[in-house]
Amino acid sequence: MTGKLYGVGIGPGDPELLTLKALRLIQKTKVLAYPAPDVGDSLARTIVAEHLPGGQTEYPIRIPMVTERFPAQDVYDQAAKDIAEFLDAGQDVVVLCEGDPFFYGSFMYLFGRMMERFEVEVVPGVSSLMACSAMVGAPLAARNDVMTIIPGPVDADIMKQRLRNVQAAAIIKVGRHFEKIRSILEELDLVDCARYVERATMENQKVMPLSEVGDAKAPYFSMILVHKRGEAWTL
Amino acid sequence: MTGKLYGVGIGPGDPELLTLKALRLIQKTKVLAYPAPDVGDSLARTIVAEHLPGGQTEYPIRIPMVTERFPAQDVYDQAAKDIAEFLDAGQDVVVLCEGDPFFYGSFMYLFGRMMERFEVEVVPGVSSLMACSAMVGAPLAARNDVMTIIPGPVDADIMKQRLRNVQAAAIIKVGRHFEKIRSILEELDLVDCARYVERATMENQKVMPLSEVGDAKAPYFSMILVHKRGEAWTL
Repeated sequence: MTGKLYGVGIGPGDPELLTLKALRLIQKTKVLAYPAPDVGDSLARTIVAEHLPGGQTEYPIRIPMVTERFPAQDVYDQAAKDIAEFLDAGQDVVVLCEGDPFFYGSFMYLFGRMMERFEVEVVPGVSSLMACSAMVGAPLAARNDVMTIIPGPVDADIMKQRLRNVQAAAIIKVGRHFEKIRSILEELDLVDCARYVERATMENQKVMPLSEVGDAKAPYFSMILVHKRGEAWTL
Repeated sequence: MTGKLYGVGIGPGDPELLTLKALRLIQKTKVLAYPAPDVGDSLARTIVAEHLPGGQTEYPIRIPMVTERFPAQDVYDQAAKDIAEFLDAGQDVVVLCEGDPFFYGSFMYLFGRMMERFEVEVVPGVSSLMACSAMVGAPLAARNDVMTIIPGPVDADIMKQRLRNVQAAAIIKVGRHFEKIRSILEELDLVDCARYVERATMENQKVMPLSEVGDAKAPYFSMILVHKRGEAWTL
């Protein structure tokens, strides 16, 4: 019997935002894989650490920290090969995925390599998008708002065009694109409708109006939420 | 001591997609409120039913099933008044929210009425957006895709304009707008990139290519996911 590959969403950072299904799979499956930096701890593993029963085989997928985190294709080629060995040997494998596996997640790189040969099940998780909105304390979108999600690395012209006449937007993966994004929002007169969130639901989280953010470099795990209703969430 | 109001996301339908935090709050809080139809069972309550310890005060917010589910303002006025009484008496209140409370959720109608007078905490949940993507078995969005979320009731002209040149999109709250949406997707030659999902993660879920959907009326809880990469999820 070939094993099954699970892509399991483990939520945005707070270990209590794990789902019951994720918890069950993480505890009963013998092989856990997760993304990890070149050197040091895996954030995904840290999120679930308190729930691990011990005695599991762990496979860290060590991804070099390159610009924009676009994947080192050879790292995923190798990971897919190694994970396939577990599956061929009849063992199920859980891949821990920060947030939700299919919402801009790196799980797609394994999924694309393995979906044709193996049974894959994705367990949705609480996304950073919803977590940021909860931490900001204002709805992401409501009624018939059209909502646009824009990755920070998108070209300035495209970003500007997509943000013009926007009702609700989230700009994700802000990182080193912070100044570009802020100046576009200034030009479009949207700064007063924008909130900045860093590491939502984690211990070192930051939430503030965009207008109060200094010039510090934003981390990769940061997001800017824009809503035309701004702070005045009147109905 | 005034009580605290919790808007708790309970996920898309599968009771196992509840988070640990939602479970804790639902079990320890003495007063549970939830949306319910005029007559009959509340979907939100059904999702958590197996986890309820019993002995809690329940407050169903009975919402008349009107077109598009736009809220009967007086129903929410009354609910806010009644929930305020619990809070003023020092009791915490959990409001059960299908999916995520702040992603097009009806919790906003209570939130808007109560946020100034009471402490409100929102617990993010697994959204139907991520659940539909997991059930379809294809990423929602990846890398630097711009993703657009469009409610079904939006005017045809606006919808068409927003879907033109789209990379990834979700059309939510499809319901009686199904034929309008399908003909727009046909016009834009996007039908082959579109999947239809109904009641994701529930027992009576349906998932199929849009091209295979018949002429039956879609329920309110249905969604169409569009991705330019379509079925060929090659990387």
